[in-house]
Amino acid sequence: MSVQMPRIVVVGAGFGGLETVRALERAPAEITVLDRQNHHCFQPLLYQVATAALSPADIAWPIRHILRAQKNATVLMQEVLGVDPARKVVVTNFGETPFDYLVIATGAMHSYFGHDGWAPFAPGLKRIDDATRIRRQILIAFEKAEIARDPEAMRRLLTFVIVGGGATGVEMAGAIAEIARQTLAMDFRRIDPRNARIVLVEAGPRLLPAFPPEQSDYVRGVLGNAGVTVMTDTMVTKCDAGGVEFGSQRLPAATVIWAAGVMASPAAKWLGAEADRAGRTRVNPDLSVPGHPDIFVIGDAAAVTDAKGRAVPGIAPAAKQMGKYVGRLIAARIAGNTVSKSFRYMHAGDLATIGRRAAVVQLGRFRLRGYFGWWFWGIAHVYFLIGTRNRFSVAFNWLWSYLTFQRGARLITRAHDDAT
Amino acid sequence: MSVQMPRIVVVGAGFGGLETVRALERAPAEITVLDRQNHHCFQPLLYQVATAALSPADIAWPIRHILRAQKNATVLMQEVLGVDPARKVVVTNFGETPFDYLVIATGAMHSYFGHDGWAPFAPGLKRIDDATRIRRQILIAFEKAEIARDPEAMRRLLTFVIVGGGATGVEMAGAIAEIARQTLAMDFRRIDPRNARIVLVEAGPRLLPAFPPEQSDYVRGVLGNAGVTVMTDTMVTKCDAGGVEFGSQRLPAATVIWAAGVMASPAAKWLGAEADRAGRTRVNPDLSVPGHPDIFVIGDAAAVTDAKGRAVPGIAPAAKQMGKYVGRLIAARIAGNTVSKSFRYMHAGDLATIGRRAAVVQLGRFRLRGYFGWWFWGIAHVYFLIGTRNRFSVAFNWLWSYLTFQRGARLITRAHDDAT
Repeated sequence: MSVQMPRIVVVGAGFGGLETVRALERAPAEITVLDRQNHHCFQPLLYQVATAALSPADIAWPIRHILRAQKNATVLMQEVLGVDPARKVVVTNFGETPFDYLVIATGAMHSYFGHDGWAPFAPGLKRIDDATRIRRQILIAFEKAEIARDPEAMRRLLTFVIVGGGATGVEMAGAIAEIARQTLAMDFRRIDPRNARIVLVEAGPRLLPAFPPEQSDYVRGVLGNAGVTVMTDTMVTKCDAGGVEFGSQRLPAATVIWAAGVMASPAAKWLGAEADRAGRTRVNPDLSVPGHPDIFVIGDAAAVTDAKGRAVPGIAPAAKQMGKYVGRLIAARIAGNTVSKSFRYMHAGDLATIGRRAAVVQLGRFRLRGYFGWWFWGIAHVYFLIGTRNRFSVAFNWLWSYLTFQRGARLITRAHDDAT
Repeated sequence: MSVQMPRIVVVGAGFGGLETVRALERAPAEITVLDRQNHHCFQPLLYQVATAALSPADIAWPIRHILRAQKNATVLMQEVLGVDPARKVVVTNFGETPFDYLVIATGAMHSYFGHDGWAPFAPGLKRIDDATRIRRQILIAFEKAEIARDPEAMRRLLTFVIVGGGATGVEMAGAIAEIARQTLAMDFRRIDPRNARIVLVEAGPRLLPAFPPEQSDYVRGVLGNAGVTVMTDTMVTKCDAGGVEFGSQRLPAATVIWAAGVMASPAAKWLGAEADRAGRTRVNPDLSVPGHPDIFVIGDAAAVTDAKGRAVPGIAPAAKQMGKYVGRLIAARIAGNTVSKSFRYMHAGDLATIGRRAAVVQLGRFRLRGYFGWWFWGIAHVYFLIGTRNRFSVAFNWLWSYLTFQRGARLITRAHDDAT
């Protein structure tokens, strides 16, 4: 490749970053993909790793393998520390990488709304490592309850609190209920896992606010039947090693999982750009950063509104659409064309599953729930997975779990250096 | 269950411990299984996790799930810290557990022959965590080589040294060669993984000393064709962050894997019993510890000789035979019978695989190698795996790898806290 070719740097190989690179497949350019992980992770199924239904390798695939056939793209496993927009270089832990075009698709992390001290007690779920950590914590709680002699300690160990009633919170609560009620039901001698207390806490008035209220009611009913206590209009005011507090009420719990809020990656800080309250970079209608026409921020890292002025949600399809748009825009610019069309978000729909045979699906006016919704959810997720092997493997694991009520990945790893 | 029932404590749920518990299925006893891990690990395939062919969950299964139907057995995830033979209690990190019969099946760890300082630079392969650590290290070496600018640093990153020419060393060397030559061949832009240097070092005169010399020659030839440099009669005299030394010769290498020696778990120390040079407890012909007729040590933790006075090897079938023997012996004693028959080891054979379509099999006078040996090896391993799901999953992963040359579990996890 000639050194005169434009250099495009894409930071982050999530849904948005990968789609950008793919849209540049035929562009005469040198694309460099930087990611601190070696794998692309299918985040919508991360909660299934956290609840031992799938193995990490089922939902993750090496980035360089995904892009192996795209010869204009080089993948480097590096962590970005900052950007110098004036000199047009990205600073990583291995040095500087110059760019002509920069696409930042670094996603978001969980946010504790200013209470970062809660993080050790209420882990969130964004990466493979988070998922195996939460899996370990859930499984160890049952193991320790079997050993505990004090009924109060046992009760605390068997209490699981999920903070946040969005899709991740609902899915986690449903999955933990299934583990306690079915998967582990016969495996213990001193405790009955079916007595585990699973509490889903939501600060707003209802679960799954992206769905219509009837669907929220339906989900609440299904979770209730599965043994989940749903608390809406309830704000967590404290998390510590012993449990959680809601105002004056204290709930002792060994496991607290944070699914309540996200904070965008520090792209805005790197660029000295304006950000919204959730840390997302405010971008122009073409997703470029004000004052930097060659630097773009996409996906969960960007604050974008749709045609009706509503915020584009932080979900995979939105990130993919932005990636495709920016990839094409850069390709057009390289070809010497100007692009005047703004980015326009198309909302395909919302999906969430609640456990065995129950899910809610909302695609415009098309609605599904219950058994058929659950099938739709499963097929859609298998379809969007990368790689035939992963599709087979996930489908096989799900079929197996469905038939046997078992979960194939009940592994506690690194228990020896686990402090809790 | 009545409290008058004899209390049997089994420490370690490897091949030996599990077999002991199973042999006691109908015994009127309270069996407690103590293990610091929650899972039984199928160690013969651990190297496949270390080389990204299988996921941890494919070769591990929760101990309590394996024993869920055996109602006289309770599984507790506890780490044993010592034994008080006089008071007949096992001391764990959660307190004391009294016993009438004790079976110690705690296996072995890798041994650096007095050079414990080498451990951080040359990890061994005994547990799931070791395997994911080695997998991370191998994959990161290629990632860093892609980033490296200095040819010497690149060369060091692409050098992999395996110390020890037994089954584990041979299997690791063959698998790493396959990763470099085939799996990763097309995935990099700046380096050619096929140039990786894979060195298998053995202190003795030939590989696989358990096999006849012709088989050793065959294995050496296959490894050589696969691109592995085999060094026999070569003793490692130093391991450090930069590589390894053999006397005055130094080989810079980013990855060194230790498959050279094992040291039994500290059972002999706990009991104040006599041990051999490898730390294995010397036991009576009925596997009990001299002076303690109710305490048994089995599997890799015990020094046992066969009818011809040869040491029983540290392999799964031997541990299983000992477990079955001791379980039956205890059951007989509980029933009021005396057992005069000593433990007698039956050697079924040896198997080792070298890579795609090549393995050596030695079952008494029956020998196989090459393609048919490889099939025999694969079928035997799938057959001995615990759980139908694991058998399916492993078979599927192998078939997939065979057809595509890919490996499904190329994940670098916890890269952020990895110092190297």
